Amino acid sequence: MPSWVPGAAGSAWDVDNLPYGVFTRVNEPDEWRRAGVRIGDHVLDLTPVLSDEVFATGSLNAFLARGRTAWRETRSRVRDVLTGEGHRAVAEPHLVPLGEARLHMPFEVADYVDFYCSLEHASNLGRMFRPDEEPLKPNWRHLPVGYHGRAGTVVVSGTPVVRPWGQRAPGTVPNTVFEPSARLDIEAELGFVIGTPTRLGERAGDFADHVFGVTLVNDWSARDIQAWEYVPLGPFLGKSFATSVSPWITPLEALEHVRVPGRVQDPKPLDYLRRREDWGLDLAMEVRLNGEVVSRPPYRGMYWTPDQMLAHMTVNGASLRTGDLFASGTVSGTEPGERGSFIELTWNGSEPIKLLDGGSRTFLEDGDTVAISATAGGVALGEVMGTIHPAR
Amino acid sequence: MPSWVPGAAGSAWDVDNLPYGVFTRVNEPDEWRRAGVRIGDHVLDLTPVLSDEVFATGSLNAFLARGRTAWRETRSRVRDVLTGEGHRAVAEPHLVPLGEARLHMPFEVADYVDFYCSLEHASNLGRMFRPDEEPLKPNWRHLPVGYHGRAGTVVVSGTPVVRPWGQRAPGTVPNTVFEPSARLDIEAELGFVIGTPTRLGERAGDFADHVFGVTLVNDWSARDIQAWEYVPLGPFLGKSFATSVSPWITPLEALEHVRVPGRVQDPKPLDYLRRREDWGLDLAMEVRLNGEVVSRPPYRGMYWTPDQMLAHMTVNGASLRTGDLFASGTVSGTEPGERGSFIELTWNGSEPIKLLDGGSRTFLEDGDTVAISATAGGVALGEVMGTIHPAR
Repeated sequence: MPSWVPGAAGSAWDVDNLPYGVFTRVNEPDEWRRAGVRIGDHVLDLTPVLSDEVFATGSLNAFLARGRTAWRETRSRVRDVLTGEGHRAVAEPHLVPLGEARLHMPFEVADYVDFYCSLEHASNLGRMFRPDEEPLKPNWRHLPVGYHGRAGTVVVSGTPVVRPWGQRAPGTVPNTVFEPSARLDIEAELGFVIGTPTRLGERAGDFADHVFGVTLVNDWSARDIQAWEYVPLGPFLGKSFATSVSPWITPLEALEHVRVPGRVQDPKPLDYLRRREDWGLDLAMEVRLNGEVVSRPPYRGMYWTPDQMLAHMTVNGASLRTGDLFASGTVSGTEPGERGSFIELTWNGSEPIKLLDGGSRTFLEDGDTVAISATAGGVALGEVMGTIHPAR
Repeated sequence: MPSWVPGAAGSAWDVDNLPYGVFTRVNEPDEWRRAGVRIGDHVLDLTPVLSDEVFATGSLNAFLARGRTAWRETRSRVRDVLTGEGHRAVAEPHLVPLGEARLHMPFEVADYVDFYCSLEHASNLGRMFRPDEEPLKPNWRHLPVGYHGRAGTVVVSGTPVVRPWGQRAPGTVPNTVFEPSARLDIEAELGFVIGTPTRLGERAGDFADHVFGVTLVNDWSARDIQAWEYVPLGPFLGKSFATSVSPWITPLEALEHVRVPGRVQDPKPLDYLRRREDWGLDLAMEVRLNGEVVSRPPYRGMYWTPDQMLAHMTVNGASLRTGDLFASGTVSGTEPGERGSFIELTWNGSEPIKLLDGGSRTFLEDGDTVAISATAGGVALGEVMGTIHPAR
């Protein structure tokens, strides 16, 4: 049944989508942040419509903690409200046009884990950074490699990204310099948001019992800082200055129609990493630099699927908390135009991208805006966008 | 002036100490968690004594967020109460004997960062893991190497540590196995707790304006899991199953008398890492296995000081939150009996420790209890303890 909301029916934001976010009306103070669902070009204010204070807490966490049955019931009620003409009179006053809404960070991030699940991305980086070795490290095909990032600097789409200062070693050690990063990059990723927690010492159960939904992630990366610091304990300041997420969290239920089998894996993973359901996702992603499409990464080709990431992350008994975010790592396909980072698109800066305005790019310049969007069949995911501000 | 609390005067828990924790009386529900200060073998219940609800929130975070002036004033008031005989009648009913108190996680951890600041520890591990290379990576003397750990699995002293399962590659790839860790280890560290936050894009100011105090940390490590997974993005499941902290946070003000110049650094660090004050700390640490002292790591000899860790962690504009925890990395001295991990004490398991009961140890066995304690002059830090439970 189509929605009665003007412009929603048949759009990419119809009742088969219904992502959750946190908003205020422009001119309202931040303290009035509350949860809403996007329908067409409007936000439905959930607290008055559903008469439930869980949506008035300023983040989605309390709702996410309720678990899968509650998520399903709420989605069903919202869909009824937005399709039934009988609900229109009550609900319509609580529809806020997007242009009159400010979108905030949709959830409080507990822990943030970043994986490295694209075979093509990992291979490309291996070839660039370690040209004399096999591109993939020996462990790569045996487990989804991951590490913890900084949860406190995960920000909502639209937050300015200030070019970071940092230490790097451009030539021979010990000639280190301290300068603003000259190799500022993106990583186009898909993120997964945990609703249902686990206790310390337990493993996670079924993927859809714990994961509420997905968000697009841009894991901004200063390649020069990262290259100098990351041995042997991994990326730190080259990533921790900002990670942007979409303001909309798309429930897994809105992605049922794009679930596909994961890519064939060789060698066969250990039993705890065995896929029990199809959690490959056929999402078409798009990366735009100042409005111009520079890449179309295909999520479907990822080597490790998100159910495998979740199983791995908790196999040692590490507990999950509501609000945990784990991301796929850069999504890169097999074709040059499918790479999800500038370091790959420009092959470490050696092959600049030609832009339609006649310019070119290796890494990001001050003032550049990068937007990452995606669609799942006819369902749009929320866009994640950020503009580079000069170093302070 | 000595304290009127019986047994406190002249002890290691006198009014020059006064660490903060969170407690309930035994038999009280967890929901009654509240902040207290340790004096002698008692906990002073702060909420009724200071008439301040900030201490009744279940964690120290709201108090930590008040900032340095408030921390100083509160310490001064508590000291007055505990030394002035005139306050005794009012305060004494709110003294809880330690034996009647349960100690809880003292603060909610925002982000957890682990550094790698001991020259001896980093050199020892380099020699063991990469015998054909220089023990230290080229970046090590130029910056305090660090990475993010899992904040959600930081637990209070006494929490059981369940031996983690994990993937490892004991022989030639691809012969991976999935088994409980056979090389379970400790890392004896000092942790620093952030009170005053910063905004995204700002660098931290003076160390003592942001850092409220210190806690002892045991960063439990499964060496076999870690060795297989950590390339190239750093430790993950080998560490994320548990990190234990002391129930007592010792304010920096209680450590003034053990502040010493940091160790000489060569090469001279970049200006942003220059030491402006003395934040070396002359702490004597002690590691006990089942009651027997197996190591006495000297904190004073650490190469990177905590003010340098803080400056580094925020130099890229990464924001701080109240409750952030950063730890020093394993504290190891120059002598064999000063190493803060079993992998170093037993040289990767090749030189087992002989125990007084006639047994020996390479890595930890089920049922082993490890306790890490420290003193700063006559001031005791809270102990961090944990017992290994069998894999599930």
